[in-house]
Amino acid sequence: MTPVRIGLLGFGTVGYGTWSVLTRNCDEIERRIGRRFEVSHVVVKDLSKPRTPTASGLHFTDNPSTVIDNPDIDIVIELMGGTSPAYEYIDRALANGKHIVTANKELIALRGNELFETAKKSDKIVAFEASVCGGIPIIKAVREGFAANRISSLVGIINGTCNYILSDMKDLKRSFNDVLEKAQELGYAEADPTFDVEGIDAMHKLVILASIAFGIPLQKLESIHCEGITTISYDDIVYADELGFTIKHLAIARRIESGIEIRVHPSLVSKQRLLANVNGVMNAVAVSGDAIGRALFYGPGAGSEPTASAVIADLVDVARAMNGSVNTSVPHLSFQYDQLKSLPIIPFNQTETANYLRMSALNQAGVLAEVTRILGDHEISIESILQKSSGHHEEVLPVVIVTQETLEANMQNALEELQVLDTVIGEINRIRIEALA
Amino acid sequence: MTPVRIGLLGFGTVGYGTWSVLTRNCDEIERRIGRRFEVSHVVVKDLSKPRTPTASGLHFTDNPSTVIDNPDIDIVIELMGGTSPAYEYIDRALANGKHIVTANKELIALRGNELFETAKKSDKIVAFEASVCGGIPIIKAVREGFAANRISSLVGIINGTCNYILSDMKDLKRSFNDVLEKAQELGYAEADPTFDVEGIDAMHKLVILASIAFGIPLQKLESIHCEGITTISYDDIVYADELGFTIKHLAIARRIESGIEIRVHPSLVSKQRLLANVNGVMNAVAVSGDAIGRALFYGPGAGSEPTASAVIADLVDVARAMNGSVNTSVPHLSFQYDQLKSLPIIPFNQTETANYLRMSALNQAGVLAEVTRILGDHEISIESILQKSSGHHEEVLPVVIVTQETLEANMQNALEELQVLDTVIGEINRIRIEALA
Repeated sequence: MTPVRIGLLGFGTVGYGTWSVLTRNCDEIERRIGRRFEVSHVVVKDLSKPRTPTASGLHFTDNPSTVIDNPDIDIVIELMGGTSPAYEYIDRALANGKHIVTANKELIALRGNELFETAKKSDKIVAFEASVCGGIPIIKAVREGFAANRISSLVGIINGTCNYILSDMKDLKRSFNDVLEKAQELGYAEADPTFDVEGIDAMHKLVILASIAFGIPLQKLESIHCEGITTISYDDIVYADELGFTIKHLAIARRIESGIEIRVHPSLVSKQRLLANVNGVMNAVAVSGDAIGRALFYGPGAGSEPTASAVIADLVDVARAMNGSVNTSVPHLSFQYDQLKSLPIIPFNQTETANYLRMSALNQAGVLAEVTRILGDHEISIESILQKSSGHHEEVLPVVIVTQETLEANMQNALEELQVLDTVIGEINRIRIEALA
Repeated sequence: MTPVRIGLLGFGTVGYGTWSVLTRNCDEIERRIGRRFEVSHVVVKDLSKPRTPTASGLHFTDNPSTVIDNPDIDIVIELMGGTSPAYEYIDRALANGKHIVTANKELIALRGNELFETAKKSDKIVAFEASVCGGIPIIKAVREGFAANRISSLVGIINGTCNYILSDMKDLKRSFNDVLEKAQELGYAEADPTFDVEGIDAMHKLVILASIAFGIPLQKLESIHCEGITTISYDDIVYADELGFTIKHLAIARRIESGIEIRVHPSLVSKQRLLANVNGVMNAVAVSGDAIGRALFYGPGAGSEPTASAVIADLVDVARAMNGSVNTSVPHLSFQYDQLKSLPIIPFNQTETANYLRMSALNQAGVLAEVTRILGDHEISIESILQKSSGHHEEVLPVVIVTQETLEANMQNALEELQVLDTVIGEINRIRIEALA
């Protein structure tokens, strides 16, 4: 099959990430859609800027027409940001029969209504998963996954900069300004952080989510209450903590009887809630609906490759739709039918995990020495030992051992030997420890 | 447009839930797909069983042919469970040109390869989101949302019964058997709980997820290591807790250099991890991929309406695909273009939240009385007051007040009055409290 030809508008952090991931994972992606993606032209503002790396095969140009008027291009990815000239470029590309993928939340929030109208007329897709919460497929989840529901609320941590600053203030016991500076050094906040720390970025994203959740047009920003995090002090974080809360910058859209609430502001959230435990630059959105009850999606809300993950997911959606068969454009098992490949399944005894062992051992000298010798014989290193005594002399004491990462086969052999020791009473209980690395 | 005509095989908990949600939310669902769903025939085993409620307009029958051979039916929903005769019914329905929606994890895990082959030949969809993790759109997320990624691991709590039992053992300090009995009484565990507590249900789901994540055929169960939770004692939960872990029943699929690990067993998980904080019947799946990094999806993994939410999401996908236009089958804003409806946006000062107030007040008699009087004047009830003193006599003391739910307008008026009190020094800091109800 002919490749899907792509033109890029913009080659900043996300543009570079998109190109990198497309290049690195081209084989698996082709197995998913049945065709190759081919990035041909890239429009940049400043041609003289050095590009890392020398992206081989890419044609850099400062002439947008090379992409948006190019009859050889199927899909235009817009990663320039801002509403103009992004709007005009996309509008023209749609008129030229191209599908659009964009990460531009401001553009969709402010001019999405017009763009979708144009897209509908030309029967083309404007895909914008990357515009909200980076790599989290939250638009797809709400638009498709929760389509059965009358959605009652969306509450999210949807600005990574705010969440990073609030998390860092708490962890480092420092003021907003101190932490902002650090965030700027690390690239988690812009030189001019206004859009993020004043809540404007979150407001753009919330406009999009609220529309999809409730079936309302994209709202004007004036109708939304928006506060940032600049007035939060370290004292507030401490008092909130004492009261059982964590301070989070939340975007909230809620359906009540008389209408819709849409607001963005810092909030105290009970520490019991998963949302309160979302830290650093991570994002999360809690969705409530009448059938689903409550669900939550968590992941990186920004960054080069997480955002590229969403851009490419949109590319895959568009390419699958372009494949022609309405019915089976998404393969049942994600990969094309002839592209499932058998991979070796690792025999279980060749897997490695750390382990927790609990045994009852006779309370006499030398028992632990014997146990640890057997573990050592099987190349099992001990991370910690917990031996409990009530203070009285008991005949049998519980012993808990945590091992380091160990080959399952070694653990099984060691367990067999431990189990038959005269000094070990009853069954040894072994539970694996999962590092979730 | 003509309605999409649906036939149901099975009318148990999920079947009833599906019908209820379709009926209750029919208007919003129609606004999403542009057509109505019409459930006509329902095949049940025992026609004499009384049906709650008298589902009006439904034609109950014990003859499966009424659905699978019915030329007036577009989509067959299979909710019978088990591999046979579900397989034969679906196979025949596909041959008859019907799309299939199923919640049957056992069937997909064991015979999916054959069914998808048949579906491909007849260019029809077999949709099975409801087969894994109930209401969480995890199949959609992995198959579409993460299509850019080389997925490295999926680690999930994907059996609600196991998670409920382990959570309850911890909370109630009771044994496995005690808690199992309670779970059975509450309907969270079957009379014969083997499938759940021995890990078999989780294994079926993991077979499906592993195939979608790694592009491998659905694996035979023999190649998967599977352990349940019957050997976990309350002591283990206590020791794990002391060591900083929570015990969870995990389903794990991981890509390592030499192949794929697929295993189901109890595991110790660091309490720092979100997965360790997923309690009761809730499910969660953590996905790692090279572009996204780490993401997590959380929600109800079973139950009548959460599972119905996934069944209907699949119905919506199929119906949108049937609509004809490949390109714009999923409307940009989820609802059909002419079906966006303006709803009133609640003026911000009419919203209600609890509030946290922090102020510096002169350390003199009557100050608190004045503050609380002003709050009372504006119908603001106080939940708690925190007044900090170092023990020495200080001129100014911090006062933190938590209010109950309050109308924003009242809070703003009260704040204006409080701010001008001579006894209040500097700015009052107010942060809203979000209940996440």
